[in-house]
Amino acid sequence: MDRLKNLLEEVASGSLAPVDAMERFYGMGLSFEELGHTKLDLSRCSRRGVPEVVYGATKTAEQILEIAIHLDNAHQTVLCTRVSEDKAQVICAARPDFVYHSVPGIILKRQPESPAPRGLVAVMSAGTSDLPVLEEAAICLEAMGSKVERVHDVGVAGIHRLFSAAENVLRRANVVIVIAGMEGALPSVVAGLTDVPVIAVPTSIGYGASFGGISALLGMLTACSGGIGVVNIDNGFGAAMLAHLINCPAHHID
Amino acid sequence: MDRLKNLLEEVASGSLAPVDAMERFYGMGLSFEELGHTKLDLSRCSRRGVPEVVYGATKTAEQILEIAIHLDNAHQTVLCTRVSEDKAQVICAARPDFVYHSVPGIILKRQPESPAPRGLVAVMSAGTSDLPVLEEAAICLEAMGSKVERVHDVGVAGIHRLFSAAENVLRRANVVIVIAGMEGALPSVVAGLTDVPVIAVPTSIGYGASFGGISALLGMLTACSGGIGVVNIDNGFGAAMLAHLINCPAHHID
Amino acid sequence: MDRLKNLLEEVASGSLAPVDAMERFYGMGLSFEELGHTKLDLSRCSRRGVPEVVYGATKTAEQILEIAIHLDNAHQTVLCTRVSEDKAQVICAARPDFVYHSVPGIILKRQPESPAPRGLVAVMSAGTSDLPVLEEAAICLEAMGSKVERVHDVGVAGIHRLFSAAENVLRRANVVIVIAGMEGALPSVVAGLTDVPVIAVPTSIGYGASFGGISALLGMLTACSGGIGVVNIDNGFGAAMLAHLINCPAHHID
Amino acid sequence: MDRLKNLLEEVASGSLAPVDAMERFYGMGLSFEELGHTKLDLSRCSRRGVPEVVYGATKTAEQILEIAIHLDNAHQTVLCTRVSEDKAQVICAARPDFVYHSVPGIILKRQPESPAPRGLVAVMSAGTSDLPVLEEAAICLEAMGSKVERVHDVGVAGIHRLFSAAENVLRRANVVIVIAGMEGALPSVVAGLTDVPVIAVPTSIGYGASFGGISALLGMLTACSGGIGVVNIDNGFGAAMLAHLINCPAHHID
Amino acid sequence: MDRLKNLLEEVASGSLAPVDAMERFYGMGLSFEELGHTKLDLSRCSRRGVPEVVYGATKTAEQILEIAIHLDNAHQTVLCTRVSEDKAQVICAARPDFVYHSVPGIILKRQPESPAPRGLVAVMSAGTSDLPVLEEAAICLEAMGSKVERVHDVGVAGIHRLFSAAENVLRRANVVIVIAGMEGALPSVVAGLTDVPVIAVPTSIGYGASFGGISALLGMLTACSGGIGVVNIDNGFGAAMLAHLINCPAHHID
Amino acid sequence: MDRLKNLLEEVASGSLAPVDAMERFYGMGLSFEELGHTKLDLSRCSRRGVPEVVYGATKTAEQILEIAIHLDNAHQTVLCTRVSEDKAQVICAARPDFVYHSVPGIILKRQPESPAPRGLVAVMSAGTSDLPVLEEAAICLEAMGSKVERVHDVGVAGIHRLFSAAENVLRRANVVIVIAGMEGALPSVVAGLTDVPVIAVPTSIGYGASFGGISALLGMLTACSGGIGVVNIDNGFGAAMLAHLINCPAHHID
Amino acid sequence: MDRLKNLLEEVASGSLAPVDAMERFYGMGLSFEELGHTKLDLSRCSRRGVPEVVYGATKTAEQILEIAIHLDNAHQTVLCTRVSEDKAQVICAARPDFVYHSVPGIILKRQPESPAPRGLVAVMSAGTSDLPVLEEAAICLEAMGSKVERVHDVGVAGIHRLFSAAENVLRRANVVIVIAGMEGALPSVVAGLTDVPVIAVPTSIGYGASFGGISALLGMLTACSGGIGVVNIDNGFGAAMLAHLINCPAHHID
Amino acid sequence: MDRLKNLLEEVASGSLAPVDAMERFYGMGLSFEELGHTKLDLSRCSRRGVPEVVYGATKTAEQILEIAIHLDNAHQTVLCTRVSEDKAQVICAARPDFVYHSVPGIILKRQPESPAPRGLVAVMSAGTSDLPVLEEAAICLEAMGSKVERVHDVGVAGIHRLFSAAENVLRRANVVIVIAGMEGALPSVVAGLTDVPVIAVPTSIGYGASFGGISALLGMLTACSGGIGVVNIDNGFGAAMLAHLINCPAHHID
Repeated sequence: MDRLKNLLEEVASGSLAPVDAMERFYGMGLSFEELGHTKLDLSRCSRRGVPEVVYGATKTAEQILEIAIHLDNAHQTVLCTRVSEDKAQVICAARPDFVYHSVPGIILKRQPESPAPRGLVAVMSAGTSDLPVLEEAAICLEAMGSKVERVHDVGVAGIHRLFSAAENVLRRANVVIVIAGMEGALPSVVAGLTDVPVIAVPTSIGYGASFGGISALLGMLTACSGGIGVVNIDNGFGAAMLAHLINCPAHHID
Repeated sequence: MDRLKNLLEEVASGSLAPVDAMERFYGMGLSFEELGHTKLDLSRCSRRGVPEVVYGATKTAEQILEIAIHLDNAHQTVLCTRVSEDKAQVICAARPDFVYHSVPGIILKRQPESPAPRGLVAVMSAGTSDLPVLEEAAICLEAMGSKVERVHDVGVAGIHRLFSAAENVLRRANVVIVIAGMEGALPSVVAGLTDVPVIAVPTSIGYGASFGGISALLGMLTACSGGIGVVNIDNGFGAAMLAHLINCPAHHID
Repeated sequence: MDRLKNLLEEVASGSLAPVDAMERFYGMGLSFEELGHTKLDLSRCSRRGVPEVVYGATKTAEQILEIAIHLDNAHQTVLCTRVSEDKAQVICAARPDFVYHSVPGIILKRQPESPAPRGLVAVMSAGTSDLPVLEEAAICLEAMGSKVERVHDVGVAGIHRLFSAAENVLRRANVVIVIAGMEGALPSVVAGLTDVPVIAVPTSIGYGASFGGISALLGMLTACSGGIGVVNIDNGFGAAMLAHLINCPAHHID
Repeated sequence: MDRLKNLLEEVASGSLAPVDAMERFYGMGLSFEELGHTKLDLSRCSRRGVPEVVYGATKTAEQILEIAIHLDNAHQTVLCTRVSEDKAQVICAARPDFVYHSVPGIILKRQPESPAPRGLVAVMSAGTSDLPVLEEAAICLEAMGSKVERVHDVGVAGIHRLFSAAENVLRRANVVIVIAGMEGALPSVVAGLTDVPVIAVPTSIGYGASFGGISALLGMLTACSGGIGVVNIDNGFGAAMLAHLINCPAHHID
Repeated sequence: MDRLKNLLEEVASGSLAPVDAMERFYGMGLSFEELGHTKLDLSRCSRRGVPEVVYGATKTAEQILEIAIHLDNAHQTVLCTRVSEDKAQVICAARPDFVYHSVPGIILKRQPESPAPRGLVAVMSAGTSDLPVLEEAAICLEAMGSKVERVHDVGVAGIHRLFSAAENVLRRANVVIVIAGMEGALPSVVAGLTDVPVIAVPTSIGYGASFGGISALLGMLTACSGGIGVVNIDNGFGAAMLAHLINCPAHHID
Repeated sequence: MDRLKNLLEEVASGSLAPVDAMERFYGMGLSFEELGHTKLDLSRCSRRGVPEVVYGATKTAEQILEIAIHLDNAHQTVLCTRVSEDKAQVICAARPDFVYHSVPGIILKRQPESPAPRGLVAVMSAGTSDLPVLEEAAICLEAMGSKVERVHDVGVAGIHRLFSAAENVLRRANVVIVIAGMEGALPSVVAGLTDVPVIAVPTSIGYGASFGGISALLGMLTACSGGIGVVNIDNGFGAAMLAHLINCPAHHID
Repeated sequence: MDRLKNLLEEVASGSLAPVDAMERFYGMGLSFEELGHTKLDLSRCSRRGVPEVVYGATKTAEQILEIAIHLDNAHQTVLCTRVSEDKAQVICAARPDFVYHSVPGIILKRQPESPAPRGLVAVMSAGTSDLPVLEEAAICLEAMGSKVERVHDVGVAGIHRLFSAAENVLRRANVVIVIAGMEGALPSVVAGLTDVPVIAVPTSIGYGASFGGISALLGMLTACSGGIGVVNIDNGFGAAMLAHLINCPAHHID
Repeated sequence: MDRLKNLLEEVASGSLAPVDAMERFYGMGLSFEELGHTKLDLSRCSRRGVPEVVYGATKTAEQILEIAIHLDNAHQTVLCTRVSEDKAQVICAARPDFVYHSVPGIILKRQPESPAPRGLVAVMSAGTSDLPVLEEAAICLEAMGSKVERVHDVGVAGIHRLFSAAENVLRRANVVIVIAGMEGALPSVVAGLTDVPVIAVPTSIGYGASFGGISALLGMLTACSGGIGVVNIDNGFGAAMLAHLINCPAHHID
């Protein structure tokens, strides 16, 4: 809100006419770039602590490429999720400096000046098939600047795998992302074992009564353990953003 | 089907006219008593291995009492579930030899000649609030002739309680009934620890996204552990009947 | 896990027989008190950073009272949620040192040695009718040791109320709880304005297509803003626990 | 209903036999053309103020072409929605005077005598991916005779974009169409800022708990702002028709 | 936005310090009154063309009364919906100048200076049981300043009743509100007969597969006639507000 | 439609002015009585073959009584369904010639000139608890003029009861109504055994995954046997009306 | 059941041993042909009045062909529904005497001795896109032996088309099948106009809130008109079978 | 738990240092092999009585092959379900000793030392189209070591087929798996005829209101017969595992 104050002071000092102030007011602090189809929110990083991320599933390769180039030109991290193989080929042919991660379908370019990753976020999955969501979360976290440790395939059907693998990382992480499909029971169990926040990501893995992730979603929302925040089905990015805000807080927390 | 054979042999021997045989045929082996509003299935015990059980929730006290007296007169176990306090008062006033269990709402009278309970069924619940369903299952099992061990309040939010309490009984039971509301994760965990069949009972305990037991139901149907059979929400009786058929098999299983 | 190491060292030293070690093992670090209907998890505070909280909606007054007294005797915060007026009368008659907050239905007794509240959690609601959920979250947070600021009635229908009221607190809080019924749009808007984690609580306020909170729940899960963790419908306690773990982290986060 | 009166007067005057009157009666005012598979409602424009619009998604190219030619021959606007690329190729090859708009999939031919567009309808979308629905609404409106202003990508995640872009147009439009997927929060916010009717169009944009547009639909139906009318998911045409009836009223409204 | 311009000009002229301008800015144009539990939006009438309406279902009699008195003191129409009989008794005892309409549960006090009702809105219902919703819509419309004509019980099961009763009013109204439960077919039929906007209100009347109004809601959203805007189940007020904005437009529409 | 022809001929003959014809036209053949809250469809019996039936659940005792008296005065059968005990007391106190059937909640008065019942409709229920729906169907059928045979409690859990009881009646009935809750399997089995139409009525009997009759409804809609028409949950009246139209056809069917 | 009586009489006469009688008993009256994957129900025509109909959607071309040949060899009508183009090519190449109707996907061969069609069934559809379901119903009816009249595209959006087209046929048909997607309102209107049974078929035509036919299904189940039996979504065959049983009753109905 | 005791005794004897014991502890009894993407649970067979089964639907051919080879090397049964034709080609090309069953999509290799099949499980299906699920169950059972008898196409539409075919096998089986789509009525009927446990498998066979198996699932959960355990839609494997645990119990049951 300092920019509002500055603007008002400019008006008070006479260096800015009221009529011009009004025009600037609505874009203030709050700048964006008009691309026609898109209003690119270039101030998101300073406002929200996380760069603008491009959701690629319902955009054309051309739209994604245009937005990505504008982000890159503004010296911001280029992070595009849900980009299919064929769109990625078009985009990376045009910009060989963009890297495509095919498992989660992410296009990434970090800027040279990006700071070293900090803190620690544990990212766990219940089964092998949850891998794409795990990688979406992990790569987004790394792009945002969080350190990540991955723990695969520790579902509750063989709960000893969880105890063995998780003990170490649960003690050191600032926040845990737990990814599971089917009955989505893993976050309940993990949250019962730790004293850091748990972010639960239901996945669409499963069939029949899984209903594309509804069973896991409901299981996580009604978990008998407290301290769990749930994000949308398969939403690795959303979990990463929330985890990053906790792991690298905007304010000093003591 | 021996009775069908006998009937045909009676016809062959001339001791039974075809026209009479037809009448008897449809009720054969398969007898019932006509009460007007109800056709009481008195042969269920021999046919199914479990006596006719009266579901009281949508019957009047008078209807329950009439059916119960007929069962008693036929020397069968009287077992009526979901009987509310006020209906029970009417029924037990008329028949002081009937016992009312108020937590699950069961009216019971075992016959003097009932055999001693056999085998072992473990009945576990995730939380204190699942008690009425646990008691419905346990009392029905005992009425049918199975031995029961109850394990309360071992939900996954504090999974050490499960390991501590369940270790002993899981080794000895022939089948385990696992009762849980909310996310319904307990059967997955238990099934991962044992080599006997698990019967999962979702309960309507919970609020919001529990949707009256749907979240637990879906969680149990999509459990990542195999070897789990699911019954209807709050259906302690159904779980008991299935468990009893496994615990006290009709045939010798070697 | 130090206790496991100690136990193994006692075995190694011969001061503990293997057979006794096995018995202790399953309850270790992981103690609980057996109340018959309930296994009271007295180690939860050290394990999870938050005391055991009693969910009162599906327990009797007697059960709540018994558990509360055990918690008090163990010098832990007594925090019981969803306690109806009539149950509260029974409980507070027996224990006048317990305080009943009637809006959210909470019974509370903080221990004398409780530390001073720390950090800051903003708790906002969209409408006047969300008050009980707001108070459940706020009182739980205070009982756990977090400082709280309440912001009432800032729904998006008059979005200027949000900007006016929220500006100040959004800059200072470590985490924001946003409570809304109906379309549940407020968390999206708030998350777009801040750089701290947002915890979204859908409420059952509304009618018709609100479907008891489903519309708000879905709206929050699919929010176009990132950085939002969702809890169950009306789950003020769950939001408070997650917020407290973020506001007062177990580890030092720098 | 004047035509009914005229018909009755013809009967009264003897110029029309009762038996012929009956036949004419059922088609009266209410004429249509029988195409076998379709009864083309040629009087819709005079009856409803908007021409017959052809919904192409579940018709063959041949059916669409035949209906379109009949409309054109009757000097009515040809407006076919949801026409796929391959159907459009067949149709436009046969009739090069028909124009295909590929983003929304619309085939259009305005008649030379069409009046100049009137009034103003603002058509806003929350995200880039809502473009096809926005274009369906906008092109239909223009075909019906309403002036349109498009406002793209003003979703609530960066609400400053809305204030900046919308201020101008909200003051001048007679009605606003607001198109949004995911949580569908934009209509609530816009309706809170304006004093003209808002027509909300949920879109199927989103994944997971968006459930193909259900989350946006429920959000719009339960919007805490009043003055919002909701149409079916992705129904740009339906919104356009309603907006046109408001923007260009049949009666003089003062 | 004139107030923003004025404020900036005050700043420019030096009569207002930037720091004071900031404080005033957030409440500007956009005033509200802080009641603690509620932020009363007193500028809604000028901003939205319709006064603040109090939704009473989830507020206490005391809260409703307090808000109503503030509205009255501000010389605004007092309009409170969904007020139960018992709450109304408390409120009207305190303020005998408030009138209670018991069928829809509305408390109303129009101000002496209220303008005469204008235009015409037809409010139709399919069945006798839809009366409370019809009255909620009609009374709200009259309170806002629209003329109303009521048409009862014209459901499609006896469609001749519709033709007979509706012919007259459909020709004169600027907008039609159509209220129906069960299959909700009436708006489709009415919209096919008229050239003014139709606002459809599903009601919760019905049983079984009506699912509390879902069948009617879906029927209206998927109506094969265009030009229909749907509001929430039983939402007579919402329909009234939308109808009023169409019937008494903010701008002159020609 | 003869009345339309007559009307036109009156106009042609000059005995009816066009302007009067228009007024009469809309009510023609199609008469109703205006009661204010209700438009009583007195021509339904001649038009539909079944008298107007009053659905009492959402009407007041006073409304039901007023409608019933009008029907009686018009010498039509008085048939009011879903009338609660307390409403019935009010109504029957005023009109002791009305008979109240308390199990289904029906008020009935047949006219002296009612013809003798014809044909045969079998009405079967799966369980004792389906009795109210069975009686609603049976009494409505008798009121309409169909002969009825009731078959109680022949659910598929003891399928021999069905074979025994149903054999006789299935051979003689012109149509069978099959009423079942829970899994709703009975219509499939019955339809597989007979060559007359089967009308399936799902009931709300059951709990948990019965979801108030949804499970039975879906089971009946997806029955693997053909020749089944389904009506709404608990809709005994609807089944009766359909059965009556089949049992006593309007036209001679050979 | 005559065959059961005959069998018993054979046993009584000594011409059939009881042991052989038992074997024959279970297949009696009730014959079928074992094809390995299928038990072909050759007695269905005599038992149910309608031949066995092959549902082709989930069978292979080879399975359909094998079943069809067995039916043909047994001199029964060959009627296979939901056969895709590519399966039909395989089948008709092998059996050129089978006729493929591509719109509904039906393979048909009537036997030379099939009786002339009787009675009259009206089959109406609301829109052009409902054609495949209309044809499935109509062709199945003709194959079963009912006369059919088709009425296309008479949806309620232009209700005059219904009155014009339907008047004639409604007076002559013994039963009406009404097919509609989207809001499914047509059966309500038609049932209000006729005194013969109405069979309602919801179709999956529509998008968004049509939910693949759910909106039409619910609309038809909750229709405010009585006398409607509903079948599964898109189930033209099921409607045909029910209509045929009404149109050509097994028993003489007078 | 003997391995835990042994470990503790090793510690007691001094042959194992506490620090090494801790490391071994978490993998104990509870060994698994780390494949990176997967933690292969090699101890499942001894712990659960059934080998690790690989769910292939959401794994790549390469992942399945790698896991399968590890299982084979550990001398365990290789059993991979839901493997598509194209994945199977890759896998069987690499390992010609693996057998592919194309109907259910199973890859299998039994070890030479596998014991002879024991007991008897009946696997019944309601229709021809349920074959893939029937084969998944049957082949899994045989791989686990149970004897199987298949009964095809005995749905309730021609219930005589069930009586004929099932009589023999129901008397001899220890447990029955009943597979059905559409209304899922078969388990209710079968359970009413037998005294062994019934495992019900809903299938996704059907259309419209079958909703991909939901109708069958609900029908089975609400079956009026007791003694039924339900598994997920199309889950032949889950049914097999549960049936095997009942048919070949871990403990001797007498």
